[in-house]
Amino acid sequence: MNKHVDVLIVGAGASGIGVGIVLKQMGCGNFCVIDKGDIGETFRRWPKEMRFITPSFPSQGFGQTDLNAVAPKTSPAYTLDEEHPTGEEYAEYLEVLADHYQLPLRTKVEVKEIRKHNNQLFEVVTSKGKLCSKFIVWAAGEYQYPDFDVFPGAEHCIHSSQIHSWEEMKADDYLVIGGYESGIDALYQLNRLNKKTRLLAKTATWEIDSSDPSIVISPYTYGRMREALADDRIEMYENLTVSSVRKEGNSYYVETREGEQFTTCTPPVLATGYKGSTSMISQLFEFGEHGKPLVNEQDESTYCQGLFLCGPELRHGSHVFCYIYKFRQRYAVLAEAIGSRLNLNMDILELYQKENFYLDDLSGCGESCEC
Amino acid sequence: MNKHVDVLIVGAGASGIGVGIVLKQMGCGNFCVIDKGDIGETFRRWPKEMRFITPSFPSQGFGQTDLNAVAPKTSPAYTLDEEHPTGEEYAEYLEVLADHYQLPLRTKVEVKEIRKHNNQLFEVVTSKGKLCSKFIVWAAGEYQYPDFDVFPGAEHCIHSSQIHSWEEMKADDYLVIGGYESGIDALYQLNRLNKKTRLLAKTATWEIDSSDPSIVISPYTYGRMREALADDRIEMYENLTVSSVRKEGNSYYVETREGEQFTTCTPPVLATGYKGSTSMISQLFEFGEHGKPLVNEQDESTYCQGLFLCGPELRHGSHVFCYIYKFRQRYAVLAEAIGSRLNLNMDILELYQKENFYLDDLSGCGESCEC
Repeated sequence: MNKHVDVLIVGAGASGIGVGIVLKQMGCGNFCVIDKGDIGETFRRWPKEMRFITPSFPSQGFGQTDLNAVAPKTSPAYTLDEEHPTGEEYAEYLEVLADHYQLPLRTKVEVKEIRKHNNQLFEVVTSKGKLCSKFIVWAAGEYQYPDFDVFPGAEHCIHSSQIHSWEEMKADDYLVIGGYESGIDALYQLNRLNKKTRLLAKTATWEIDSSDPSIVISPYTYGRMREALADDRIEMYENLTVSSVRKEGNSYYVETREGEQFTTCTPPVLATGYKGSTSMISQLFEFGEHGKPLVNEQDESTYCQGLFLCGPELRHGSHVFCYIYKFRQRYAVLAEAIGSRLNLNMDILELYQKENFYLDDLSGCGESCEC
Repeated sequence: MNKHVDVLIVGAGASGIGVGIVLKQMGCGNFCVIDKGDIGETFRRWPKEMRFITPSFPSQGFGQTDLNAVAPKTSPAYTLDEEHPTGEEYAEYLEVLADHYQLPLRTKVEVKEIRKHNNQLFEVVTSKGKLCSKFIVWAAGEYQYPDFDVFPGAEHCIHSSQIHSWEEMKADDYLVIGGYESGIDALYQLNRLNKKTRLLAKTATWEIDSSDPSIVISPYTYGRMREALADDRIEMYENLTVSSVRKEGNSYYVETREGEQFTTCTPPVLATGYKGSTSMISQLFEFGEHGKPLVNEQDESTYCQGLFLCGPELRHGSHVFCYIYKFRQRYAVLAEAIGSRLNLNMDILELYQKENFYLDDLSGCGESCEC
């Protein structure tokens, strides 16, 4: 690993690999992608049974890109023959890409600290030594940092991301806190294993009428929920916000703001979200009212020049970029900003625009369906 | 129904509704969509258990259109909350569209004959009387005309499209002829009902390496096939071309060109394809070596000016348009050709281009994935 690089990409997940490919295609000669684990590490840690909720389909030959692809002319559906890949499978797709595009990549390198002194290079302390970089692309993801600060006693719960396989769940009934995608996935998985399950949801996502899949549950999840509901082992409680979990002896007491109490003998399953990896370098960002980092039109930190953010933590106003098909459209925008400052060859952007991998005008985004 | 129209669209399926919407948006004041049945009639006749193999997902808010949508800013996933709609459900989506866009539509009107005399109007004889039209858009589909001419004795078989529900199949074992999507769907459905099933395939589609889903089976089907194979009730024979089916008493003898013989006590399930509705007006088309109608760059019959073809029968050289996400990109191209001759307002084409609903340059199509 060079001690001095032009661009350091932190994270070898969907975003890190995706941005790495654009930079490589722009002829960037001195950059590096690092990850504290392996390529696609977070995906590898998904529960064994978990699958992509966005379907993959190899339709790129006619200009419709696989929703889960991170680079034009590639498709996980083609690589994997799977419509809803598991995390392990998707990591395999990312590995194939890293290899095909010969990305300069170092795994098992952990970032300990990032410093920047007035308009100088970034100084990055890693588990394998120090390095300097002109630009940093923060692509460290969101889904590996369970948030245990959501309410007092959350530490008594088991976070859905800590479950390696639902088969490990040996009790007969469970209580799930959270009604978004991972909450309903938990419900579905537990139901399949014949567990009785109660789910407490702040919002009845399954009743929302919106055409933005970042707000409502996906058709895949919806179908699975319907399937699970057909059995008789499920109770779903809506409009309940958990205020605390108390443990006494072998019992867990779950209190809600609305004054309801639930008791369970197994640690409640926490499906309430993640902290986001920017919490590790929060001194380099300003944070908006939505709790997410503030970035300019090129996804550069409003507080620290040269630091770019990509991946599911990205927000622009009311636009949430939590799906790959959303945030991948910003790789080329960000790469263009870096490329223009490094005088790279940006001809490749034409392909990105043509293949719907470039979204710089957000004014038309998030519009609802007419029908 | 006016006796004189500018454009007559024959068929109120995906294509008829899709083209109708563009014409309406162009301000075409005098056109009509007719169908011999109801809106989405062919979809309604699908076997009850059959589902779309292309997944629907409401991603249009970020420029990625639902693969099964027939108009920009619409999404069957949004309308139906389904990723893989049944035929009945999809027909419902088409009905919602017809209503929303207030299409001039007449159902239960069957076309008996179309005549055209040198550069004059088309004269169309229907079950509800005669009418005249400047242009005809033939959108009558492909999947309602089972082809029984594939080999001698095919009439002894039951065509997959004649099955209302797989639950009707009461015997214990079946033989399926055909290894494409509908053949493997038959295999999957019969296996679910615990039938023993043998499948005879000319081509082992499940072994082909191509990123064009018109050639290989879809990821959805692939997954179902894997699921079915895990049971032990299936035998798949590849590289066999059936040459005849003979019926003697209660037995069916299936012979192949390769000299193999199979015997079964139930009518073989025929999953070998359709005739295509252009066979009804074959005098108005030239046919290419691929057996499909020849059209110019605007999808107009090379033989009969003013007659346009859209839907799954469309071919351009080696490009097969058998999926909705493929052939829908030609609606606006065709509508542009008609619109320019009728002096319609074509501002709407900008939206179609922006939303990936307009494909006039086929040179980049069908490229394979890099990975």
